[in-house]
Amino acid sequence: MKLVLHDYWRSSASYRVRIALALKGIAYESRPVSLLDDAQHGADNLAINPQGFVPTLEVDGTPLVQSLAIIDWLDTTFPDPLLIPREPVARAQALARALVVACDIHPLDNLRVLKRLQSQFGADKQARDDWYRHWIAEGFVALERMAGAGPFLDGAAPGIADVCLVPQIYNARRLELPLAAYPALVRADAAATALPAFAAAHPDRARPA
Amino acid sequence: MKLVLHDYWRSSASYRVRIALALKGIAYESRPVSLLDDAQHGADNLAINPQGFVPTLEVDGTPLVQSLAIIDWLDTTFPDPLLIPREPVARAQALARALVVACDIHPLDNLRVLKRLQSQFGADKQARDDWYRHWIAEGFVALERMAGAGPFLDGAAPGIADVCLVPQIYNARRLELPLAAYPALVRADAAATALPAFAAAHPDRARPA
Repeated sequence: MKLVLHDYWRSSASYRVRIALALKGIAYESRPVSLLDDAQHGADNLAINPQGFVPTLEVDGTPLVQSLAIIDWLDTTFPDPLLIPREPVARAQALARALVVACDIHPLDNLRVLKRLQSQFGADKQARDDWYRHWIAEGFVALERMAGAGPFLDGAAPGIADVCLVPQIYNARRLELPLAAYPALVRADAAATALPAFAAAHPDRARPA
Repeated sequence: MKLVLHDYWRSSASYRVRIALALKGIAYESRPVSLLDDAQHGADNLAINPQGFVPTLEVDGTPLVQSLAIIDWLDTTFPDPLLIPREPVARAQALARALVVACDIHPLDNLRVLKRLQSQFGADKQARDDWYRHWIAEGFVALERMAGAGPFLDGAAPGIADVCLVPQIYNARRLELPLAAYPALVRADAAATALPAFAAAHPDRARPA
């Protein structure tokens, strides 16, 4: 099976998929799509990703899109280690934590949304940063309450919620959002980023030279 | 097993869960949470839904949140009819279509976001409606290209993408977004809404008298 990941080093959704691939020890070819050059909207990327987004995982030429759908495919195809529990209630709880990040934080702070705030409302950098931090904080307050006993968000081992959390914490730190109010999230992030798989997927390691 | 759905008649995410319950023919008790009265932020709702959102499905007293996680739980617990395919690639493709709506359209047009546009940028109703339509159109362009042979988005029978599409088309019509550019989506919506389960879950049927 040949896997090709079309990604961008700083994209949160790409970072999630890199973490999942690394946790499972899966080899893949990486093809960067430069968001700075607007390559995501080029014909090559639109042919495999109708939204003009990253990441896309090509599986023997079949493109899979949407990071959580890609991670679900990885989890059913390479179940060791499992990132989404099989027991129905534990499964729903892990997915819910992941979806708080993937639906209710990240899409609101995406590059296309920040650009739209600028074009439609004339939002300057300060206003865009305030917007960005607002939605992270809203989501983190809830996620902190949804965390279990730890050390990871998903329990004793990292799961799909941790895969989504770490890139979001990376963004929160870039935006200088204070994190003291979220001790369970900071603990989960520290436990995860201490693992070689999370380190291997870090944007600094994926950044083209 | 006792199921209690805390929902709001016009909430898209609640509408999704009502459709899934109806398709599977599952009996449940309904407890409305009035978004007009801000009841979602009351202590009762926050105790079961840390985001202060709807819907929440209580399963013998255990609250499940996030509509896609709830639908996943319903699908593993009541697999007839299955809404998420089991074959890994078909599964990833169905989830991807659902996530286009659930991550990249709906959260951008949520009530809390429209309120924030008003408070942070002074956006009037016209500006908020333009914003709302913009993100639906962006997502629908991609989703139209992701549709299969039909009649439903997910193929010969309605699946999780159809469950997400129908409430989003309902919103698009409320906002008077032209739909002529999305024939596959309009066809899937028509096929779905002709089914008794989709009709039973419609906001007008869930609206308190």
